Amino acid sequence: MAMDMTFLGTGSAYPSPHRGASALVLRVDGECWLFDCGEGTQTQLMKSQLRAGRITKVFISHLHGDHLFGLPGLLCTVSLNTSPDPQQKPNCMDIYGPRGLRQFLRVTLGLTGSQLLFPYAVHELEPTPDQCPQEGWLNLEMTAEHGPPHPQEQLGRTISHDVSSDCYFLFEDKKFAVKAFRLFHRIPSFGFCIQEHNRPGRLKTELLKELGLKPGPLYGRLKDGEPVTLESGHVIQPSEVLEETIPGRKVCILGDCSSVLGEGLLQLCNGADVVVHEATLGNEHREKAVDHGHSTPEMAAAVAQACCAQRLVLHHFSQRYKPSTLQKEGDEDNVLELKRQAEDALQDSGIEVTLAEDFMTLAIPRRRPR
Amino acid sequence: MAMDMTFLGTGSAYPSPHRGASALVLRVDGECWLFDCGEGTQTQLMKSQLRAGRITKVFISHLHGDHLFGLPGLLCTVSLNTSPDPQQKPNCMDIYGPRGLRQFLRVTLGLTGSQLLFPYAVHELEPTPDQCPQEGWLNLEMTAEHGPPHPQEQLGRTISHDVSSDCYFLFEDKKFAVKAFRLFHRIPSFGFCIQEHNRPGRLKTELLKELGLKPGPLYGRLKDGEPVTLESGHVIQPSEVLEETIPGRKVCILGDCSSVLGEGLLQLCNGADVVVHEATLGNEHREKAVDHGHSTPEMAAAVAQACCAQRLVLHHFSQRYKPSTLQKEGDEDNVLELKRQAEDALQDSGIEVTLAEDFMTLAIPRRRPR
Repeated sequence: MAMDMTFLGTGSAYPSPHRGASALVLRVDGECWLFDCGEGTQTQLMKSQLRAGRITKVFISHLHGDHLFGLPGLLCTVSLNTSPDPQQKPNCMDIYGPRGLRQFLRVTLGLTGSQLLFPYAVHELEPTPDQCPQEGWLNLEMTAEHGPPHPQEQLGRTISHDVSSDCYFLFEDKKFAVKAFRLFHRIPSFGFCIQEHNRPGRLKTELLKELGLKPGPLYGRLKDGEPVTLESGHVIQPSEVLEETIPGRKVCILGDCSSVLGEGLLQLCNGADVVVHEATLGNEHREKAVDHGHSTPEMAAAVAQACCAQRLVLHHFSQRYKPSTLQKEGDEDNVLELKRQAEDALQDSGIEVTLAEDFMTLAIPRRRPR
Repeated sequence: MAMDMTFLGTGSAYPSPHRGASALVLRVDGECWLFDCGEGTQTQLMKSQLRAGRITKVFISHLHGDHLFGLPGLLCTVSLNTSPDPQQKPNCMDIYGPRGLRQFLRVTLGLTGSQLLFPYAVHELEPTPDQCPQEGWLNLEMTAEHGPPHPQEQLGRTISHDVSSDCYFLFEDKKFAVKAFRLFHRIPSFGFCIQEHNRPGRLKTELLKELGLKPGPLYGRLKDGEPVTLESGHVIQPSEVLEETIPGRKVCILGDCSSVLGEGLLQLCNGADVVVHEATLGNEHREKAVDHGHSTPEMAAAVAQACCAQRLVLHHFSQRYKPSTLQKEGDEDNVLELKRQAEDALQDSGIEVTLAEDFMTLAIPRRRPR
């Protein structure tokens, strides 16, 4: 199964003509999962090779406008480009994000009279009190639902923090388990861990033939992990006839954050193929970055190292950093310097650093059997 | 006083890489007044010659997303680029638009924890019941304010429909009187009339000298319309010593609408220098346009003619119409054809037709004295 991610916006704070506001698409098996949706994401999508109509799930890391203001418009435009099949009920768009997101969509879609041709459900993550120390006015009253639901709004789940694992269970299907973990920013922020299930290794068909088993349904049962009893009474265990298990890939996409690493993050991101982490400002602006709840490349590197990740992808750059293609010699702020700072912090660790730019696509190759 | 308008987005329904969503800036005396603010308007502003920090007033014609979804982000970005002078209280941003706009901003700014460095006030126009025949779920409960106001929200006015004049009085200052009038669309929609005050003609200085009056404060009083008594007892009337009055310019900017012309529109737009009118689809799609509450070039022309306007500017084109610079021979939908359709409808009327494109600036020259 092919898996890749495309960065639609790598800028922080606001969209500019050179860097979109936060948004990236993880493509899994033809489906597009959108992570964050800053203003202008729909236009960035149109400029990319991706199709907005392929978006089946949306994940919002936190409610700051540069990660969210594009969502109502995106839903409207996806709907405008939908040609509903009268024979088939349209799929529900699942939207995951912090408490308050449901009310945000209810009001923005409701007051604008936005009609959607598909249903949507908002599954809200309940922040813990220590995630929102500063801004008391972002209170329970504000985030509670009020007013009539949108005609297409379906009942979403309220997902509580699992204290023992310090994480949130979003969903699990045949291919993936998706969880979220807490981050610490100025407002409640989350990271998402997309864990592909391990897959059984290939069948040793030569050996099976030697054992007298011809290709057929029993092969499938062995592959599914069930033992098979031969006519002779001999029992074949799957482990005897399967190559080594193919480990599932793990992709971790973090929202805005600063320093504090929760237990959930460390557990869930451990051994990730890819950790996508913000690096809003260079190391030399660490104090300012931390003041605003953000990270530097060095701080992002520390997270990747603590998780033993294979690759660290930096994004969410202050708009003072031009894309590397527009960089001129002598420019005071050089985005390539951010990459160098992370690489310096990770030397000898074997962790690769990638600098995300708008419209960059990063393949996430299958792991080798272990 | 220089006056011009710049189109930031001339597309309907959603922003695309080729046409922004609805937004235009009327520049008066160095101030920028923004009319509508679709998603991406802040990025269009950055690409233009205008400065977002110069925006002092915002007017929202109606609450559809393609005219509104860019407003929360725009306010945040204007704030980020504000360097407040601690000696001076920042000016209040006045925002005018239909009932529900206050709650929209309260929720979008509030839930996203958007901090602004300047105060804002939303002055809401109360629609009349016949403006919203279809969508009953856009009801009073939804548009009512709920939840805590934003820390920077100041008390805005609620502006009722003046039945006798069929219009809304927004504000009047030394230079302008600004009113709104009702339009008929799928949801309540409004047009705005910006009427510059007439200015007194120039002083006939030769004549004044002959009358024995030397340049000084009395000249100013005459210019302000006050009679002046000479030492001889002779009274000079302003009309004797002033050239002809310079009539004020009138600019009318209409939101989305279809067909029905109210008395307010006809009165307020009468003799306008410029009428900006939507032309979403060509004449051949009239039925579809009307179904969606929109206009064709012919319908826009009828409005301009009914108002005896001097110039009709068409905008708000379906995204099927590419900008004329990207038009290729043989393209099925040609935006130049929309202009031709309006011109056909206006032949011999003397009304000029202008096709708006993104980033086009249209000067609104002073009128000649009458």
